[in-house]
Amino acid sequence: MNGTADGRGNASQASLREVNLALIATTAFAAPEPRSRAELAQRTALSRATVSRLVDELVRGEVLAEQERSTAGARGRPAVPLVPSPARFVALGLQVNTSRLTARVVDLTGATVAQHSQAGDLVGSDPAEVLGELGSIASRLMARLPRHQRLAGAGLALPGIVSTPSGRLLRAPNLGWAEVDAAEHLRTALGPVRLQVGNEADLAALSVARARPGVPGANRDFIYVSGEIGIGGAAVRDGAVLRGSHGWAGEIGHVCVDPNGPACRCGANGCLESFAGRRVLLAGAGLPPDGSPHDVLARAGAGDPGTLAALERAADALGTAVSSAVHLLDLPAVVLGGDLAVIGPLIRDRVEGVLARRVISNPWAAVDIVIGSGDPSDAATGAALAELERVVANPAAYLS
Amino acid sequence: MNGTADGRGNASQASLREVNLALIATTAFAAPEPRSRAELAQRTALSRATVSRLVDELVRGEVLAEQERSTAGARGRPAVPLVPSPARFVALGLQVNTSRLTARVVDLTGATVAQHSQAGDLVGSDPAEVLGELGSIASRLMARLPRHQRLAGAGLALPGIVSTPSGRLLRAPNLGWAEVDAAEHLRTALGPVRLQVGNEADLAALSVARARPGVPGANRDFIYVSGEIGIGGAAVRDGAVLRGSHGWAGEIGHVCVDPNGPACRCGANGCLESFAGRRVLLAGAGLPPDGSPHDVLARAGAGDPGTLAALERAADALGTAVSSAVHLLDLPAVVLGGDLAVIGPLIRDRVEGVLARRVISNPWAAVDIVIGSGDPSDAATGAALAELERVVANPAAYLS
Repeated sequence: MNGTADGRGNASQASLREVNLALIATTAFAAPEPRSRAELAQRTALSRATVSRLVDELVRGEVLAEQERSTAGARGRPAVPLVPSPARFVALGLQVNTSRLTARVVDLTGATVAQHSQAGDLVGSDPAEVLGELGSIASRLMARLPRHQRLAGAGLALPGIVSTPSGRLLRAPNLGWAEVDAAEHLRTALGPVRLQVGNEADLAALSVARARPGVPGANRDFIYVSGEIGIGGAAVRDGAVLRGSHGWAGEIGHVCVDPNGPACRCGANGCLESFAGRRVLLAGAGLPPDGSPHDVLARAGAGDPGTLAALERAADALGTAVSSAVHLLDLPAVVLGGDLAVIGPLIRDRVEGVLARRVISNPWAAVDIVIGSGDPSDAATGAALAELERVVANPAAYLS
Repeated sequence: MNGTADGRGNASQASLREVNLALIATTAFAAPEPRSRAELAQRTALSRATVSRLVDELVRGEVLAEQERSTAGARGRPAVPLVPSPARFVALGLQVNTSRLTARVVDLTGATVAQHSQAGDLVGSDPAEVLGELGSIASRLMARLPRHQRLAGAGLALPGIVSTPSGRLLRAPNLGWAEVDAAEHLRTALGPVRLQVGNEADLAALSVARARPGVPGANRDFIYVSGEIGIGGAAVRDGAVLRGSHGWAGEIGHVCVDPNGPACRCGANGCLESFAGRRVLLAGAGLPPDGSPHDVLARAGAGDPGTLAALERAADALGTAVSSAVHLLDLPAVVLGGDLAVIGPLIRDRVEGVLARRVISNPWAAVDIVIGSGDPSDAATGAALAELERVVANPAAYLS
């Protein structure tokens, strides 16, 4: 855009180009399968010539990449399938949870191109110390980025309630953190890189919703429940994470499953977390609090009665909480993440039984239980993907 | 539109008029306060001349009405405030619940211009008989509509899960109805009038969200919980009723509040309904099952210990269910309807106490408890308003 007499005309053309680049990029990225220029023209109702010219720009700018020509189902000249480009744009996904620090560099395809993850007990930790350490890890990763890669931004996933848009963490009961300005603690390490802070489960759910390759549409509507020391949750409708009035929706970990249940770290009692959190399962299995869900799995495999009873209590609680969530949100699937993905195959039948008994719409639309990846750093991927979506939403701002 | 050689140009102008009429009407109706032509021009970014011409059309068509000129806050010539017109467009709202049949004629201002409501015990009733009776009531009301009024459509509110868009009732546990094609039963009575079937609580919540006059914005985000023999619920975000994947979201009545709680008519146990439904309250107060919430209020006023204990149990259950709903939906207010509006003032403090103890975000955003109108036929109003919104969304289709 320029300031000459015909500035307005130019600005308007520039803005049309911006809008069309964004339309083409979002259409190409939203497709479960690679699309050709002709298919993008059809989808966007733009002319074939306009689409070709702008796709060329996106390919040169390394937002999209061309795959080998395909002849499948096409008449005439084979089409060139277009896919997200892994080459240039990346974002940094950071994650703190109660047992791990992760920093991940993710590209436009959703792949992790570099990462550093370290286990540790962060319950009751000092935010300044932990975020200082995370900043050092992030700095080292950024210093090692190949020269041609461009960092679109950074996202930080925290297991608690975050005030938006300030990004201030209000409370993370299991870390023992309250009123933490995480961005301030990371400012020196990140320098001019934009940082967005979000809820861990919301961002993990985003990574599930954007999983590639996936069954088309299968991940667009679901309740996400992820186990760790705490239980996080999110609701995804039509591919978008449900926010609610303050960005705090989806907190299934503190849904009450028994008003006479055990104390929860949040101050209430009988929350889902107090039946299905990691330490509760480990204690039930007679294991020390620093054990893993795989240890629980091993004890269950050995037929240990205490472990089996703890898994049954967790399954009943999960079934009850999910039934409440299905009544309130009307979503057709629940995706189990974190520890719950590990123990999922053992408890699935019992959870299904509770849903069949409790959910009034179940005879017409049974809830599907999906075992997620179990990657404890899914939220770091989601935090990076949220930043990369800004590139796709407005590629013109990133093309030089 | 016509089919001549310049049909396309005409069609395009006609469609521009349609779009702009819709934009002006929705903007005028969405405003909490009456707006002038100048304000509508500003809001819609249409020219003052276009707005004036189209507002004149909407006033002639009796979609909008002009109030007396106001001088408040205006410079120059006083502005003419524009409001929904009560004169011409009406819709029929029908409602069946366990203790009442209602048919209501509602105008564009949201006012009831005619109605017939009759109490009766409809638990375990025969759908054909009840809907036949409702059809007769509807026919009589329609026959008495003033000649200048135009019926935009009819809506039927049922206390159960409804399949959309077919309008088939899948299940209403408290009526004892299952798999009912309500539209078919009403076809003879309604003739060519369009009928849309919906969930009672969703439609009652819509009437709350559209309440006039109201505090601007106060009713745009809330959880709605309504008591009768059953407990219905809905979630409203930014003025729209949350639907979920099948239109069944917001069912707070079957949120589990105690896995060891009493049996519920849905087949599960410990649902909110099994603690706060009308018959449970009446039984706790030692009253017969055909009593009213006002009888319960009277016993509580007389200090009857059984009644007070039943109200405490209902308050605890309501607080627990609402806390689960707030965690999942993140909405800032809960509106109590039906019987819960009647007993609301007695239980509000205790419900607030449960929310303060259970909701993890409460210190930063306490949930507001709002006592609704207590009108047992709110859903009939909502059903009519849903039809009238079609007039506002596309006035050109209704202007002759």
